[in-house]
Amino acid sequence: MNQQYRITSALFTDFYELTMAQGYWKQNMNHKVVFDMFFRRNPFNGGFSIFAGIETLLDVITEFRFSDEDIDYLRSQKIFEEGFLDYLRDFKFSGDLWSFEEGSVIFPQEPLVRIHANLIEAQILEGLVLNHINFQSLIATKTARVWLASKKGSIMEFGLRRAQGPDGAMSATRAAYIGGAAGTSNTLAGKIYGIPVMGTMAHSWIMSFPSELEAFEAYAKIYPEKTVFLIDTYDTLKSGIKNAIKAGAKLVEQGYNFGVRLDSGDISYLTQQVRKELDKAGFPQAFISVSNELTEEIIETLVQQNAPIASWGVGTHMVTGGNEASFTGVYKLAARHDAVKNEMVPAMKFSDNPAKTTNPGIKNVWRLYDENSMARADILGLENETIEPEKEYRFYHTMIDYRQFTFKAASVKPMLSLRLKDGQRTKERLDDSVQLKKSREVMMKEIETLDPSYKRILNPHIYKVSITEKLKDLKLEFIKANIR
Amino acid sequence: MNQQYRITSALFTDFYELTMAQGYWKQNMNHKVVFDMFFRRNPFNGGFSIFAGIETLLDVITEFRFSDEDIDYLRSQKIFEEGFLDYLRDFKFSGDLWSFEEGSVIFPQEPLVRIHANLIEAQILEGLVLNHINFQSLIATKTARVWLASKKGSIMEFGLRRAQGPDGAMSATRAAYIGGAAGTSNTLAGKIYGIPVMGTMAHSWIMSFPSELEAFEAYAKIYPEKTVFLIDTYDTLKSGIKNAIKAGAKLVEQGYNFGVRLDSGDISYLTQQVRKELDKAGFPQAFISVSNELTEEIIETLVQQNAPIASWGVGTHMVTGGNEASFTGVYKLAARHDAVKNEMVPAMKFSDNPAKTTNPGIKNVWRLYDENSMARADILGLENETIEPEKEYRFYHTMIDYRQFTFKAASVKPMLSLRLKDGQRTKERLDDSVQLKKSREVMMKEIETLDPSYKRILNPHIYKVSITEKLKDLKLEFIKANIR
Repeated sequence: MNQQYRITSALFTDFYELTMAQGYWKQNMNHKVVFDMFFRRNPFNGGFSIFAGIETLLDVITEFRFSDEDIDYLRSQKIFEEGFLDYLRDFKFSGDLWSFEEGSVIFPQEPLVRIHANLIEAQILEGLVLNHINFQSLIATKTARVWLASKKGSIMEFGLRRAQGPDGAMSATRAAYIGGAAGTSNTLAGKIYGIPVMGTMAHSWIMSFPSELEAFEAYAKIYPEKTVFLIDTYDTLKSGIKNAIKAGAKLVEQGYNFGVRLDSGDISYLTQQVRKELDKAGFPQAFISVSNELTEEIIETLVQQNAPIASWGVGTHMVTGGNEASFTGVYKLAARHDAVKNEMVPAMKFSDNPAKTTNPGIKNVWRLYDENSMARADILGLENETIEPEKEYRFYHTMIDYRQFTFKAASVKPMLSLRLKDGQRTKERLDDSVQLKKSREVMMKEIETLDPSYKRILNPHIYKVSITEKLKDLKLEFIKANIR
Repeated sequence: MNQQYRITSALFTDFYELTMAQGYWKQNMNHKVVFDMFFRRNPFNGGFSIFAGIETLLDVITEFRFSDEDIDYLRSQKIFEEGFLDYLRDFKFSGDLWSFEEGSVIFPQEPLVRIHANLIEAQILEGLVLNHINFQSLIATKTARVWLASKKGSIMEFGLRRAQGPDGAMSATRAAYIGGAAGTSNTLAGKIYGIPVMGTMAHSWIMSFPSELEAFEAYAKIYPEKTVFLIDTYDTLKSGIKNAIKAGAKLVEQGYNFGVRLDSGDISYLTQQVRKELDKAGFPQAFISVSNELTEEIIETLVQQNAPIASWGVGTHMVTGGNEASFTGVYKLAARHDAVKNEMVPAMKFSDNPAKTTNPGIKNVWRLYDENSMARADILGLENETIEPEKEYRFYHTMIDYRQFTFKAASVKPMLSLRLKDGQRTKERLDDSVQLKKSREVMMKEIETLDPSYKRILNPHIYKVSITEKLKDLKLEFIKANIR
């Protein structure tokens, strides 16, 4: 694990988790609970999301501790008792964690991570779970949209300089790779995660030479196998492409190929003109790469216009989410141990915002496929339920109980699996780069099971996430009891 | 320095910096250059921005190195020569760095950081400079807007769970404090940066008890001095406020005060109703705090409606920028050493996008104040120029040369100061928390010199950033020479 920069201090949590924790500790209320991490809506007005960050989260959960220095800091706040600080000194997560597989296609309302632990441990984990899953899922989702808009083209992630801080770049690069990016400019992420690194020249390279042509020729001489000329430093059509063709001709003579990159101007018009120039000069194999504030919407439009673009450098919008910079993940109590009944009982949160009302109980998620192996609906049900293939069930809308449907699935996939048992991994930890490739493959495989209508960039079809009859009944029971 | 999590690997840079660096090294082109870091427009359609991240950047620049492992990784890419890898092994920044003071009010086009170094060092620094300054300036600017919208109220930063990764939370918390936040929920940031930490209870606390009242009473008993009841778990008006008043009454009897927090529903309506209930119960001193997807626009509206709110919990939008998640900072060559002339000569980047054309030469920035000590314009000029108070000058628009004005300043402040000389700090490094308080004071002082019209949330007046006649002439000279 090369990630020396990772935060492992358990202080990386909201302060109220610690004040509540001491409250539970003093009340002797450290009973078993189940918390769900789920999200409320797909970002970017999209039809799906991609689950990412779980493997990073598992590393952090198994490593995080309160150091002596951390304890001293808490003591200095003058509201924590020594007994409680002693408890924190030995603190580590000793519960169970269930989750979706990294790279999975996910939908709102589904418990993506389900934590079974004592109350204090579950509570202190909240910030970590949300911080890692929310950010990486946001970026994996954004990148999947960019990648689909490019018709699964070659997406280079170039976002380091506009990312939200150093880890904002590192985690974004990781998530972007899961979401379909082919490579990154972030060299450290290349080293740690084994992601292909790429990049050739900046405007400053060209400005450091007496002329554009000399700059191009110098680069081509050093990196004949990897030359992409940046052609918009002075004037793309009057100067850049002409010099690129001169310098490129020498590369071709030597048996190499070359590319050109545009980073400003009207991409649609300029790429058509540049393509013509390259073809006219006899270099139909020379490729065009573009960058400059690209989004999935711009890429989709350019692809529809048949812009002759071989690869896309995407930065700012992809690594920050652009106009939507956060994922709506939340972490809510789903069940708690009842001392009188001596069993786990469901819990439910009500809210003046109906969308903030939760689904009670310990829940599983099943994905139902039709005979063509296409995903048709996801079902939330209670822990002790099963959904079998070839059997017809009636399912219900999560919020509007008169919306229901019946479905007989050709196959059924349970989406949650046990990742931590008593705080320990259930399977051996994979090397970072092996894990990351695996997560990316999950995304690529799962996205194929989704009808194109759900993958539209604009106005996608809404995928069904429904609940079983038992869960619906439990929910209605809670609602009845709450209205007094 | 407690920041064990900080990335100090010099691999945290865009790969093309390294391929270009080897190119310069092979060409023996490691001449002196000057790079400017500046930004292109104020985020959030605002009238100003706040400069943050420079102190973090100085730490990283003085610490970052290529480790043996980093060198091995580069070797594995099979395009770097051993001689160049040897050069990187001893690599550290040995140049000069000028910058604005952290916390300063800043405007587009101004060189915020000016780096004088050899070409390779200056180039490898690009990603670091942009990553740190862009993100922290974005968040400090956003927070200053939130703080101004609240009429300099009490802003609690609660963003950890929705921030862009772990450092996305840490750096955002730091920058939010510079921008005017009063405290944070992020306990680790509290420890490292000495920012006040705050927070009381979550919905899960309330749901962990048999009843809302019991949950409130238990908390009040443990933290009588710091109780803020969260009143929207079940029903704010029917249940939450009533139980808060019951539990709060006991606190008041014991000589304490209490507060209530709302996290959902119609804040304007609910806070008015809750205020009435509290007053009716005889607790005019009990305060109301609100949270739930707050932005500067929502806060401004609530303040205009005289919503009785004492403090604001702001998370997602403040720590990510919300609908604008990146700062438009760029890093461009401004001058280079010319071997023939044996002197520094100005450099200028042209572009098919006129806004991407740079201001050439080694530049200073002066802020001009009127007789009331209000900032009236910022001027970019060349290194060897001076601007004196009580003297009239003619200044020019940075892009439209027929827009000009004359001004006689009552006082003049040069905005750039030397922070690193030959790679070493010019002043002793302050403790993190001391530095941060200082940066926050700079913001608070500078924001007072800005006319309210520039600080409007919606449709602010545009502050003048102009250039001296000499810089204008230099720019026009370049443009003439470029049009052939």
